[in-house]
Amino acid sequence: MTDLPRPSRRKPDTAIYERMESRVRSYCTAIPRQFTRAEGAWLHDSHGGRYLDFLAGCSSLNYGHNHPVLKRALIDYVARDGIAHGLDFHTDAKAEFLDALETVILKPRGMDYRAMFVGPTGTNAVEAALKLARKVTGRQTVIAFTNGFHGMTLGALACTGNEGKRGGAGVPLAHVSHEPYDGYYGPEIDTADLLEQRLADGSSGLDAPAAFLVETVQGEGGLNAASAGWMRKIAALAKRHGALLIVDDIQAGCGRTGRFFSFEEMGIRPDIITLAKSLSGIGAPFALTLFRPELDQWKPGEHNGTFRGNNHAFVTAAAAIRHFWSDDAFAADIARRGDLLGRRLDAIAARHGMGTRGRGMMQGIDAGTGAMAERITGIAFREGLVIETSGADGEIVKVLAPLTIDDDLLAAGLDILERAVNEATAPTYGVAAE
Amino acid sequence: MTDLPRPSRRKPDTAIYERMESRVRSYCTAIPRQFTRAEGAWLHDSHGGRYLDFLAGCSSLNYGHNHPVLKRALIDYVARDGIAHGLDFHTDAKAEFLDALETVILKPRGMDYRAMFVGPTGTNAVEAALKLARKVTGRQTVIAFTNGFHGMTLGALACTGNEGKRGGAGVPLAHVSHEPYDGYYGPEIDTADLLEQRLADGSSGLDAPAAFLVETVQGEGGLNAASAGWMRKIAALAKRHGALLIVDDIQAGCGRTGRFFSFEEMGIRPDIITLAKSLSGIGAPFALTLFRPELDQWKPGEHNGTFRGNNHAFVTAAAAIRHFWSDDAFAADIARRGDLLGRRLDAIAARHGMGTRGRGMMQGIDAGTGAMAERITGIAFREGLVIETSGADGEIVKVLAPLTIDDDLLAAGLDILERAVNEATAPTYGVAAE
Amino acid sequence: MTDLPRPSRRKPDTAIYERMESRVRSYCTAIPRQFTRAEGAWLHDSHGGRYLDFLAGCSSLNYGHNHPVLKRALIDYVARDGIAHGLDFHTDAKAEFLDALETVILKPRGMDYRAMFVGPTGTNAVEAALKLARKVTGRQTVIAFTNGFHGMTLGALACTGNEGKRGGAGVPLAHVSHEPYDGYYGPEIDTADLLEQRLADGSSGLDAPAAFLVETVQGEGGLNAASAGWMRKIAALAKRHGALLIVDDIQAGCGRTGRFFSFEEMGIRPDIITLAKSLSGIGAPFALTLFRPELDQWKPGEHNGTFRGNNHAFVTAAAAIRHFWSDDAFAADIARRGDLLGRRLDAIAARHGMGTRGRGMMQGIDAGTGAMAERITGIAFREGLVIETSGADGEIVKVLAPLTIDDDLLAAGLDILERAVNEATAPTYGVAAE
Amino acid sequence: MTDLPRPSRRKPDTAIYERMESRVRSYCTAIPRQFTRAEGAWLHDSHGGRYLDFLAGCSSLNYGHNHPVLKRALIDYVARDGIAHGLDFHTDAKAEFLDALETVILKPRGMDYRAMFVGPTGTNAVEAALKLARKVTGRQTVIAFTNGFHGMTLGALACTGNEGKRGGAGVPLAHVSHEPYDGYYGPEIDTADLLEQRLADGSSGLDAPAAFLVETVQGEGGLNAASAGWMRKIAALAKRHGALLIVDDIQAGCGRTGRFFSFEEMGIRPDIITLAKSLSGIGAPFALTLFRPELDQWKPGEHNGTFRGNNHAFVTAAAAIRHFWSDDAFAADIARRGDLLGRRLDAIAARHGMGTRGRGMMQGIDAGTGAMAERITGIAFREGLVIETSGADGEIVKVLAPLTIDDDLLAAGLDILERAVNEATAPTYGVAAE
Repeated sequence: MTDLPRPSRRKPDTAIYERMESRVRSYCTAIPRQFTRAEGAWLHDSHGGRYLDFLAGCSSLNYGHNHPVLKRALIDYVARDGIAHGLDFHTDAKAEFLDALETVILKPRGMDYRAMFVGPTGTNAVEAALKLARKVTGRQTVIAFTNGFHGMTLGALACTGNEGKRGGAGVPLAHVSHEPYDGYYGPEIDTADLLEQRLADGSSGLDAPAAFLVETVQGEGGLNAASAGWMRKIAALAKRHGALLIVDDIQAGCGRTGRFFSFEEMGIRPDIITLAKSLSGIGAPFALTLFRPELDQWKPGEHNGTFRGNNHAFVTAAAAIRHFWSDDAFAADIARRGDLLGRRLDAIAARHGMGTRGRGMMQGIDAGTGAMAERITGIAFREGLVIETSGADGEIVKVLAPLTIDDDLLAAGLDILERAVNEATAPTYGVAAE
Repeated sequence: MTDLPRPSRRKPDTAIYERMESRVRSYCTAIPRQFTRAEGAWLHDSHGGRYLDFLAGCSSLNYGHNHPVLKRALIDYVARDGIAHGLDFHTDAKAEFLDALETVILKPRGMDYRAMFVGPTGTNAVEAALKLARKVTGRQTVIAFTNGFHGMTLGALACTGNEGKRGGAGVPLAHVSHEPYDGYYGPEIDTADLLEQRLADGSSGLDAPAAFLVETVQGEGGLNAASAGWMRKIAALAKRHGALLIVDDIQAGCGRTGRFFSFEEMGIRPDIITLAKSLSGIGAPFALTLFRPELDQWKPGEHNGTFRGNNHAFVTAAAAIRHFWSDDAFAADIARRGDLLGRRLDAIAARHGMGTRGRGMMQGIDAGTGAMAERITGIAFREGLVIETSGADGEIVKVLAPLTIDDDLLAAGLDILERAVNEATAPTYGVAAE
Repeated sequence: MTDLPRPSRRKPDTAIYERMESRVRSYCTAIPRQFTRAEGAWLHDSHGGRYLDFLAGCSSLNYGHNHPVLKRALIDYVARDGIAHGLDFHTDAKAEFLDALETVILKPRGMDYRAMFVGPTGTNAVEAALKLARKVTGRQTVIAFTNGFHGMTLGALACTGNEGKRGGAGVPLAHVSHEPYDGYYGPEIDTADLLEQRLADGSSGLDAPAAFLVETVQGEGGLNAASAGWMRKIAALAKRHGALLIVDDIQAGCGRTGRFFSFEEMGIRPDIITLAKSLSGIGAPFALTLFRPELDQWKPGEHNGTFRGNNHAFVTAAAAIRHFWSDDAFAADIARRGDLLGRRLDAIAARHGMGTRGRGMMQGIDAGTGAMAERITGIAFREGLVIETSGADGEIVKVLAPLTIDDDLLAAGLDILERAVNEATAPTYGVAAE
Repeated sequence: MTDLPRPSRRKPDTAIYERMESRVRSYCTAIPRQFTRAEGAWLHDSHGGRYLDFLAGCSSLNYGHNHPVLKRALIDYVARDGIAHGLDFHTDAKAEFLDALETVILKPRGMDYRAMFVGPTGTNAVEAALKLARKVTGRQTVIAFTNGFHGMTLGALACTGNEGKRGGAGVPLAHVSHEPYDGYYGPEIDTADLLEQRLADGSSGLDAPAAFLVETVQGEGGLNAASAGWMRKIAALAKRHGALLIVDDIQAGCGRTGRFFSFEEMGIRPDIITLAKSLSGIGAPFALTLFRPELDQWKPGEHNGTFRGNNHAFVTAAAAIRHFWSDDAFAADIARRGDLLGRRLDAIAARHGMGTRGRGMMQGIDAGTGAMAERITGIAFREGLVIETSGADGEIVKVLAPLTIDDDLLAAGLDILERAVNEATAPTYGVAAE
């Protein structure tokens, strides 16, 4: 019989956070617990409670918490005084990571890309991608998409759609045109056609773009999944107009949608790919910008960063790649589990007249409003399930369970989610509380 | 008797890097070795060579490589399944870090600041600082200084002086005015006075600034050290004109110049402080933006980032703070060692009509030209000393040894440096090679 | 019997232009004559030729060349030493203009607006409008439309769609989002609805706008005419989202589309209106920005300009307003003549499978391609008709005859145009020339 | 005996202005009269008063009001149905202007320049100059100077120093670095040397400039006059660093400082020159951008504007050039009169411990504060002298009398100014009023 969550009923002492940490913090407000330990899909708090983790570090923990293979690799490396910080020095850890990337990931997929180690966070991978695209094309405008999310530093933030995030910039965010994503205007209008018309029109006011920056599934934007057909159109459009195609695979990549890259089955070949989140496997900061070798027009040091070589992350990332991606078993498992997930979500949603969104192990329920979604996740948390929302209004309840989760635990979590939707939508909701 | 460096004579096989890594890499070109292991001030390569490390991850390894206390803390934490990745969740590791920061660092210095955990790299700490300053003041222009270096993402890059770095942006870098740093126009001209005149003049074209962003010692810019008097003037100017004072202490902080913060003895109190590099102690990615509590006007999630809580770094950072900063012994030791360093560098420089630069354990020799500095560091590397240059033309040979280095090893490294300067400046230089 | 054009066959001596005038000149290349005299719809050249003017200074000569009433007023004013240049001093000429504007134009239409005298050219009226909208709303983004044309100075150019014009900026053109104009995506898609969706969506990446800047008929953009319904939707959208509605009536206003303002019959009331071109009546430089009194939040001198009070233009503008707009006769006449024009153009176009565009006395034929349109205007010029093209590809042959043209002359000009279309589209075109 | 001013004591009825004109108006507030007629140095108001004009349209009326030669030329041209508005068509008026410019102005000075007819106002000439410099160099940053004034449209405004004017933009003003003008930091510091150091320093944060934009005398900025030596240094610096030298001669040119161009005696040759204000002679809107022929890299129509060919202005400008500049007599007269002016101003200023500023017929008194300067000009106006202030604080009382003014009238105006300074600085000032 499956272990079940056992949430603790007590809030932790948060005085140190109130006193010392900026109010910019957010998740800890909705999930007011102090966590001390985690393995697999489980989070343990300081009062002995345990929670199923359907957030997984926003897809940074695709292999679960503290996977034993990765733990072992890291401990061994630290214990033997492996290089922790090496700027961009050659290290055996880096060589091993590059070898794993080449032989396990790229070569079998027929992909020829250069790896650029950037500052260890997704936004930095995006900034490097944007710089390179602008440098190579000599153009400045980047086409990003409605509901896209790409990071918080100024270059990446300009490509992010969310007005709350954008408002933090304090300066105007320029050099980006936000175009409607696949399906934005409903099923009747093909937004790639709209974009094509404007690009082809010398009087549209849309300047010739350096790049298209696109997610195949918009993680923060509400699990909108682009169709393969639309992605191919976009890729062709970019090519025809001399723009580079950047796929931001930070949230949807590393297996989240089924294969290592989220676009593998779409028949496209991006010019530039950004990776981060689950790349290190263990949740350590690590980001990577990949590009076609011909685009490698950087001068030495032109984009750098103190932590651009996080050797601890090299070690766990190489171990994760070899452990999970050396054959097709893992991908098949994700596909199977993603189907399970999809069927359960469809059933839950259908019962309440709701829709579902997403693809693979990156699916969710459209609760209609942010208020309803928050009600659902609040009930779920009370029952021991950590799950969060996304979308412009926070209206999507987003399942981001570890890809490695046991079927039983996945089912247990979805049972909780189902009960939460039932309760949240019941006419009697909130009555007992009064 | 002190161990001496024992450089290996063979270059490693770099085929994997040539094939797979972007040409943006830089240090590994000047130091063509593959490192496999490091402790304290020593780097070991794949051919059995060992090198004294006077670069120390550009000041990211102030406590040396793999300090046993930090290693132990990290291994224990990983072994017990401590949270590796927690977004901005409360964790025991974070609470412990905040407590160490508060009780060991801030309180004894009478400092009341909020901590904002940003993406784990210096540029992100700077971006967050700039956003906050612009948000709080409602102004857009930031005053940065000649030769300043603040990072590579667009917001921070706009504040960076170096044209090579700036050229990578691909878009114009706006909303920043670069003003002359202390001593920029020679000893006769007080650049703070020049700035004051322009700020006070409603027709100078200099818009009212949101912030001044300044380093007390410019690490990348050539070890220019601002005087306490100039810093106080700048601080007063900022206050008088409604701008926030941001001290970027990423390279000069964490003890590099003698105390935990580089400005402690200057009688100023910045509004915002950025930290990164040596903050985690072990070289793990970690960055922090501190600000006065009244400035904490963020909305939840307004600036976020996947890796904004690097719990492994919390663990080592807390351990480092408690181990090194609980009493004054370490600061005293740095002061003493910095004096040793300064005296040796002055002597070496004087013999060759060169000058010295910098402060504390962040000092160097002005070799006059980048070519001469590169010649010196090249010879030093041949002899087993890893040392690098900085400055607009790379003309400064920069000693960034671990703060914890034994006096004997420091002396051994400086001996190599001395011989390198002698050889590089000898009239017969290069003759033997022909 | 109507006088007919009598084109001269000789090109003038252009050595002085070749030697002394920048190659930026354009119309004089297609119309290689030197003009010396003009009245009504006639242009006379230096070799005794005469031409019908269907360009009319791009709608700057709605009352024809040198209308006797305006000529008289100007000569008298100059002869009596009237103020020519008065900065923004009060002058009797300005008072008389303001009185004519108030009593003849604004009051009868129930319009309450303040007049701002800006630098005497359309682009300056637009720059002032943009500044005011941004100042009043505290926002920066302006929504402009595909194929819009608003001027060449940086603020106005950013709102202009044409890539050739934009390319001259030399800096990125920011703070403007170019949205699809009425009918841009064909008759099935209501572009106002698309815009509404993006404005209502907090994650669309479209920042809250300060203003919508729109022409009711896009003169340079190809005579695209917005429907009244679309304009009302746009006006309502602007209001709902806190943006100001700026109607750029520089080319379509002053009677060109039938009434003094081009939007009179549309049931909208813009917040800001820009006027120039035919405002002075005689073709003298004069521009005006009108706005609702509540928006008059300028500080004295906050936007100024040496020639912001062109008193010669005040004189002719007042005379023109009183002469043409004191009753409805002129508007009725334009309506009648516009119908004549439309019917002839429809007939010509239909015969060749072409379409027509525009409204009132601002109509033209869509020749399909710029090459065909240029062929047509070239033949027309050979026959003594000065007529030009517009549109993204220059594909629209644009009739901008004086509004005061005799019916006979209008017919004569259209006869030439008809023959030119016939000849240009004939299978034998160009054969004779070989 | 000289006629004296005879100010009227009554304010005009300003109801129409209050009701209908934007509050952005400024001069008419300090000079609350309605003018109806003007000749030479005289302004006549609607109540029969007459005033000496020491403002002269801010240097737009260098030849006085309604000079008979220019009046005659304009009336004749209008009467004979000369082309008023011709876009950029060739006209006999344009040919005659170009010929006068070439033969009377440029050739005798050994200057080879192309003329670009821009929108008829100074700001447009500056915008065209900036565009061209950016286009030709492929760079974006322009170096402008403290206290510079170049216009109100966004491109020119970014180069303007005054914070009140800048504040009207509503968007950040980018791509310009404002550097200290000659003498800005006092006589000990050569600001050209400061600029040189920053340009030569690859880490100064000052991007490679497209152009230097400079006035030889800053009209609006307070009559600061650059020395010939400084201008030569600046010119050499621009050349050395690949930037174009743009001299904005809009206020200081057309004879105001003694010769046609203000830089003639300085031994420099600008790459680009902007002219406007007194160019038409009669005060009609007219602006011109001149540049070396090699820089004429415009594409046809790349910068255009409806009123770029103001033919009325061509006529008066050609007449003015031929009448005043065909020999050296006028320049000699200005020189002589400028000396008279300077001596009187020096004497007045010295008596009150004030300084003087400026050059030629563009000189003034530094009253120390804007309040004192306003007091002086207020008294002067009361006595029938129209005179205004400039400078960051409005502290300079600026004499901009017509260059053609009779010595007697100049003396009469200066007598009034002298009494005004006496009265304004008297300890009893304001007592009588109480």
